[in-house]
Order: sequence, then structure tokens, then C-alpha cells
Amino acid sequence: MTKMREKKNADADGVGIVQTEFVVFAQPPDELVLESGKRLGPVTLAYEMYGRMNADRSNVILVLHAFSGNAHAAGYHAGEKTPGWWDAMIGPGKAFDTDRYCVLCSNVIGGCGGSTGPSSINPATGKPYALDFPVITIADMVNAQKELIDHLGIKKLFCVAGGSMGGMQALQWVALYPEMVRNAIPIATSLKHSPQQIAFDEVGRQAIMADPDWRRGNYYGHGQPERGLAVARMVGHITYMSDKSMEQKFSRKLKDDNYSFSFAPEFEVEGYLRHRGDTFVKRFDANSYIYITKAMDYYDLSGGRLFPAGTTVSTRFLVIAFESDWLYPAYQSEELVSELKIRHVEGTYCRIESTYGHDAFLLEVEEQTHLIKHFLTAGAERAGQGNA
Amino acid sequence: MTKMREKKNADADGVGIVQTEFVVFAQPPDELVLESGKRLGPVTLAYEMYGRMNADRSNVILVLHAFSGNAHAAGYHAGEKTPGWWDAMIGPGKAFDTDRYCVLCSNVIGGCGGSTGPSSINPATGKPYALDFPVITIADMVNAQKELIDHLGIKKLFCVAGGSMGGMQALQWVALYPEMVRNAIPIATSLKHSPQQIAFDEVGRQAIMADPDWRRGNYYGHGQPERGLAVARMVGHITYMSDKSMEQKFSRKLKDDNYSFSFAPEFEVEGYLRHRGDTFVKRFDANSYIYITKAMDYYDLSGGRLFPAGTTVSTRFLVIAFESDWLYPAYQSEELVSELKIRHVEGTYCRIESTYGHDAFLLEVEEQTHLIKHFLTAGAERAGQGNA
Repeated sequence: MTKMREKKNADADGVGIVQTEFVVFAQPPDELVLESGKRLGPVTLAYEMYGRMNADRSNVILVLHAFSGNAHAAGYHAGEKTPGWWDAMIGPGKAFDTDRYCVLCSNVIGGCGGSTGPSSINPATGKPYALDFPVITIADMVNAQKELIDHLGIKKLFCVAGGSMGGMQALQWVALYPEMVRNAIPIATSLKHSPQQIAFDEVGRQAIMADPDWRRGNYYGHGQPERGLAVARMVGHITYMSDKSMEQKFSRKLKDDNYSFSFAPEFEVEGYLRHRGDTFVKRFDANSYIYITKAMDYYDLSGGRLFPAGTTVSTRFLVIAFESDWLYPAYQSEELVSELKIRHVEGTYCRIESTYGHDAFLLEVEEQTHLIKHFLTAGAERAGQGNA
Repeated sequence: MTKMREKKNADADGVGIVQTEFVVFAQPPDELVLESGKRLGPVTLAYEMYGRMNADRSNVILVLHAFSGNAHAAGYHAGEKTPGWWDAMIGPGKAFDTDRYCVLCSNVIGGCGGSTGPSSINPATGKPYALDFPVITIADMVNAQKELIDHLGIKKLFCVAGGSMGGMQALQWVALYPEMVRNAIPIATSLKHSPQQIAFDEVGRQAIMADPDWRRGNYYGHGQPERGLAVARMVGHITYMSDKSMEQKFSRKLKDDNYSFSFAPEFEVEGYLRHRGDTFVKRFDANSYIYITKAMDYYDLSGGRLFPAGTTVSTRFLVIAFESDWLYPAYQSEELVSELKIRHVEGTYCRIESTYGHDAFLLEVEEQTHLIKHFLTAGAERAGQGNA
């Protein structure tokens, strides 16, 4: 997403120094069976934990990340100056209060944040999977996370929460394991990917695949298809911001006083996009871009799939959308809220005024903190965990 | 733009068979002086005419095309089955009624529709200009059109009209030659390119420049940078449609019944975008994409530049915007309307309900026809041309 918050006083109000941990499961012959019918194993999942599990492990909040995120949601890795991607929201006294709850952030399979993905070594060949990695879905990501939750001995999650693709995983958790989720906070997300969302993803994939350095996915050892991946990311960044936030941030400001009458970047917005594209290719795997966008495009919990017939759902929902988010517009959250009402599921809906566009779930800290704290406290009281 | 209207009964209600004509001017040493200070000459401009000029040449409507358009606005070229890009709007009894008016459509310099552009032969080298073509602006396009209007012996245009970049040219005509424009119809356009509009253009340029086949612009004789140009066009098409029109047209429909669990195009929207990209590269020059988007990005008639101080403006305006157009949102047309009010310039503003997005200026024929006919008739009566 557009920007990580740089914290002024590192650690003063945060979770401090943290490290990513890993669990390995689905060892052959007990591989993870995917939605496609294919099997994947062994599977490594990267995760981080902040705060402590209580005795009955009933205070765990599973935080799920967006498209290009990773397990490092809060605190600092030793020697690094940038905190985790939701550090403003996770910590003592923050929205996800680590004095009360144990916050767990799990990476997704298919990515490049330490979990098994297309850049991992395929045990069958000893080389990176590349396109031999099976196509995965949001449900496959969640089924892998279920293994982690079992591994940690957690019977029931106090809450699942996330923005964007993190919200899709939160909803997928409810769809697959409703009895394991007390509370759910899907933010700036949808019940399904719309054709416009699919179209933006497809453009990103095509930009990568058009780059000859992509080599049909077999670029490991040769260097990334950097140009195509940068173009994909630039398109993404436009969709994460809003027309208004771009106007506020860049307007028509030039780097120099006058038009260059050349094709060098001269508008500030051009320089910003190129910079974002260039830094992204240093941290993100092009094949992961392709696999994870495809997982989002397949995602569809509309038409009753969120609450399959016959399931009893006692999960409480806090649904949050942002006014200027045109990538995951508020009407999509409202479709989710309608499903809750039809099934008499308890839910609160908040449409927050913001000019930040889709990035708002990372940037609108104050209002989200207020809503989430209140929602979680009420949920803890309900569960008899007032002093959890 | 997204689709050309295929006419059911060719010629039954249209202007019939037409052909593109050409004028050459700015012969050295009298080159066209560009906004950058550079000079360009000789300059060829392609144009088409439908209907007849009256004796005093006072009934000419100059129609201006959008980004990827050309001079062929109406009727059929011999042997072709697709009419001009605004055929639904130009012809006997249509919005731009060729029984009353002489409709002239001028191509722009910088493009690849027969006028001088980067793919033209540079007389200094005997080879295509490529990046030696000077960077041009919307004002340069209009100054070239002024030469055409002079060449045709037209002292005053009855109307200038166009959508998108065509609307920018219409407004630029008023800014440069207010005394020559009786009526102006800017549609789905803006007084300036916003940072979001610049950003989408920059992504398209970067996609082209990232393609090694672009060869820093020197691809003539080698073949186009087709992959990069196709990606640029795919991004464009998303911006021309609306979230809603994509939902209506594609929803999540698949080509086959089930997910393929592969990266082949399977959602209909994916197939559509790839098809649009593939056909575009056969008709449009990649360097023209770069030059014309840059001209749009430089375009800025805000802050009083539309009506420079001291000019007297008697031009009447009909400003049209569309509800679902998020590429050139209605608020941009409303900024234009504010400028008209501030300067006491006569103007009518219509915000048309439509789900077509930016493409609406090509597709919402009925409502536009009603508005434009009425506006032009009132303008003709005002000018004493009731029987023009």
C-alpha cells in the first residue's frame, strides 16, 4: 500500500523488537489439499505474535495482511527503522491492544514473505517452483492458517481482522470455520472481486508477463522482470489512492519550474509512481504478484457462500469502509452488511469519511482505533473475558 | 474508446462514403512555431468534411477527436464496414445535422491518423522522426488546425465540439481564438489534467517504454513494442468504462463453466481487455501514444487561462458531463462552468445520467442529440442563420 507509518519514537509506545517465526506442516504424504484438487507440501508459514496468550488461549486476534503485506505487522525487526505495516494499530493501548490480547499475524501461502510460494524450492526438483507452484485461492490461504492455529493449540479465535485481501481472509475464515471465530473485522473489502477489480489485477499480470525477463516464470537466478513488475505496481498505487488525495499530495506540481518538453519524469506524481515501482521490485516476487492477484480474482463469497446453509453463525462483525475508496467501494461492504442482516448475524457497519482512498485502512488510525477498541471490549465482555 | 457503433443499415441515414483529405502547410522556412519554442514543418493535417459550406462559410462545425481518434468521424471509407467514430452523431438530421451544417473533423498533429507525427518522415534525415519529433501540446494541435481553417477560407467557426481530448481542443480553440468561435461544446472533459489523469498516462508511457521492442522510440522497420502498448491500452480501457458498466457487461462470467486454475484468460473481462489490447497495437503507433498523452498532461487552462484577461468572449457554451465518468469526473466540467459564470459567459451545463463511464460521450447518443440540436438551433437563430 502507499505508505508505512514511520514512528517518531521507536518502541516508546509499541511492541518493541520482534521477529518472524515459522511453522512447517503438510509434510508428504499429508500435503495440504488445495481447492484446485492439487496438493502442496511441505508448507512453511511465517507469522509473528505480539502480546501473550492467556491460559485457555482464548484471547488471540488473528490479523491478516493485504496483497503485498507480510507477517511483520507491528514492532521492529532488529536493526530496521521501519515498523510493521499495521504498527499504528497494534500495541499496548492501541486498537489491537497487546496488553489484553495476543495478536497473531500470519503470512499467506503464495507470497514471498517467508511462506511457501512460487519462489520457494520445489522439493520434487530442488529448484524454485516458478509456475509449477499450484494456483491457490483465498480458501487455501486460510486452510494453511488453520494448520498454524491448530499448531499453536488455539481452539477458537477471539477475532479475525484485516483490510483489503486481509478482509477477504477474515471473511473466508468465517465461511470455513464459523465455530472458531468469535468476532470478525473485515475492512475496506468485499464479498467478491468485481470485474473492475479483476481487470486491474489482469493488467498487472499482463505487464509482468509482457516483460521478456519474466521468462515464463523461470527468472530465478536471472533477476526479476523488474520493468513489468514496476508498471504493475504503479497501476496498483493509483488504485490505492483517491483522485482527491492525489490532488492534495501532488496537484500539478513540477520538480522544476517549467515544462521540460521531454519524457523525463517532471510532475511530482510521475516521480512518486516511478519511485514506488522501483522500490517494490526490490522486495516483491513477480510470480507472487501473479499468484496472489489470481487468488483474489477467484474469491467469491457472495450468493450465500459466506454462511453456507445449515451453519450456525454466532460471530459478531464490525464492517468498516472508507468514503473515497474506489478500489473496494463502500457499496461492497454494504453488500456484506446485507448478507449479515438476511442471516440475522450481529454486525455494526461504519463508513468512515476519508480522502485517502483504499490506503485509508492503513492511515485512518484514530477513527478505526476508536471503533475497534469499543467493538473488541464489548466482545470480550460478551465472552466473559472482561479481564482477559 | 471502448466501442464504435456498428450501424445496422449502412448509409441509410448517414453521410455515405467519405474519404480523408490532407492539407500541407508550414513549409520551411515558415514552420509552425510550437509552444516549446521548437519548429515543425512541413506539417500535414488529415481532415474530413460532411455536408456543405454555405456561401459565407459561416456554417462550419469543427469536430475534434479524443486520444486515439482520427479524422474519420462519420460515414464509411470505401470497402469498410465500420463507420467513423462519431457516426451516430453526425449526418442528416443527427445531432450535428449535415443538412444544415458543414461538419469538419480535423486530426491532430502528433498522432498516427495521417497527420504529421513521430512516425512521419523527418525531412532532415529521410527517416521517421521517432523521438526527434518535438514534444507538442494541445495548443500546438489547435494552432495546426487554425492553418487548416484559414486554408479552407473559414473566418469564423459556427461551433467547435468534442469529447475527452476533443473537448480540450475545443476549449483551447476558445482560449486562443475566441473571436473565431461562436459556439463550443466541450464534453466529458476538463480545464486541466489532474494528477490521477497524469498518473494513468504515465503508467501507459512506462508500459511502452519498458518494452525492449520500443528501442528508445526507434522501432520503425522492426515492429511495434506490441506488448507494452497493449498493456497501456488495457489500463486505458478500464478507465473508459465504469465499475457499473463492467458489472453489467461482464460481471464474473467465465468463458468456461469452471475456474481453470491457470493464468489463461478465463473471466470474460480478461478476454475483452486482451482483445482490445491486441487490436489496438495493429492500428496505433506507440510513439504517438507517448506524445499525445504528454500533450494532455501539459494541458492546463485553469486559473483564468481559458479567458485571458482583456479578451472579450461572446462564445456560447454547452458543457456536458456524465454521471459515471470517473476518468473525467463531472466536477471537472463543473469547474469549467464556474469559470464561465465568473466571466459572465453564456453557458448551459448538463450532467447526463449514464452508467457507461467516460465512453458515454460515444454511446449516449439520444440525450446528447437532443441537447446539441437544441443548442445549435438556438445558436443559429442568434447568428441570423435560421435557414443556414
